[in-house]
Amino acid sequence: MKLLQERIRQDGLILSDKVLKVDSFLNHQVDTQLALEIGKEFARIFGDQPITKVLTIEASGIQFAMATAIALGVPFIYAKKKKAVTLSENVFSASVHSFTRQETYQISVSQKYLDPSDKVLIIDDFLATGAALAGLVDIVKEAGAELLGAGCVIEKSFQEGRSLLEKMGVRVHSLARIASMAPGEIHFVEDDILFNPHSKEIVEC
Amino acid sequence: MKLLQERIRQDGLILSDKVLKVDSFLNHQVDTQLALEIGKEFARIFGDQPITKVLTIEASGIQFAMATAIALGVPFIYAKKKKAVTLSENVFSASVHSFTRQETYQISVSQKYLDPSDKVLIIDDFLATGAALAGLVDIVKEAGAELLGAGCVIEKSFQEGRSLLEKMGVRVHSLARIASMAPGEIHFVEDDILFNPHSKEIVEC
Repeated sequence: MKLLQERIRQDGLILSDKVLKVDSFLNHQVDTQLALEIGKEFARIFGDQPITKVLTIEASGIQFAMATAIALGVPFIYAKKKKAVTLSENVFSASVHSFTRQETYQISVSQKYLDPSDKVLIIDDFLATGAALAGLVDIVKEAGAELLGAGCVIEKSFQEGRSLLEKMGVRVHSLARIASMAPGEIHFVEDDILFNPHSKEIVEC
Repeated sequence: MKLLQERIRQDGLILSDKVLKVDSFLNHQVDTQLALEIGKEFARIFGDQPITKVLTIEASGIQFAMATAIALGVPFIYAKKKKAVTLSENVFSASVHSFTRQETYQISVSQKYLDPSDKVLIIDDFLATGAALAGLVDIVKEAGAELLGAGCVIEKSFQEGRSLLEKMGVRVHSLARIASMAPGEIHFVEDDILFNPHSKEIVEC
């Protein structure tokens, strides 16, 4: 998604070869117009399928799940990161290890909101190690629902998240795939290559 | 907001005289159409003022801040609940005690995203003790920005949150004000009374 890549080049802050901050427009202060465009793009990519629910994880996936759900005309669900006092009914849950925070937490979704009739699209802001998304995939499987794909706003393609998800049989699409980065420079995986799974070539765009 | 009150009557789960669950349509699974209507209503109520930013707190305020920001055509910011590893720059922060979870946490907003030129509308899902909202008010004051009001989706009017905020000089508007509730019944503060600050009368509607 060119609009997103350009915005990352313009406003993203690259702190190291692994850490990209996009909190001026994506995940702390949010450019709502851009978020809506992101939702429309996910709807364009995945909308040929009969999606009944969008699933994400609190907190920074919410704005993109909402934008996608608006574009698709379906509800969205956000998994909670720990069992809340008022989330008392039975839940589907998974353990997620965060490498950024060096902690393991539980994510959970009420059993009332996912069932075998659901066709689910997972949406999240970042795909890096894939741990959070793999937890969401586990929850969809536990519910017996059908997983139609996973859409990520930004993918760190130099980390193992995509291959982890693909090994789980998940169709993954990311709107900006970072091949490599360092303070002052960022290289995206060329969009065209996304559609050629046999190519390993990485082109700056 | 009649649409919201009707939906609470229909789909809200009253667990006790203090605990209302709305997680089937507001804060776990989200009805995006209703969320957008809520955003439009806040924009109708507060939109006569020159709002530059909507401010909320992760996670369950995000969908309503986003809907309101969409309706107003401005960005929104969500305060983080603890200092994240990648939120390394200087922050405005406040301490918030959660009575539901019986814990105190820090909320913070990067100093880059609020400044004295900003005119801020605070949005959140619930107003009960007012602790979280008071923390957001403190952050706006710390930034030297102007606070134009606070919009809450659901207010537990039998708790002290509104009076706490009003004592801080905040203009508060809630879309559904619960006067009292118990399993099987819920009473809203009559909408008309909202516009008569001298009336203490509570009417079921």
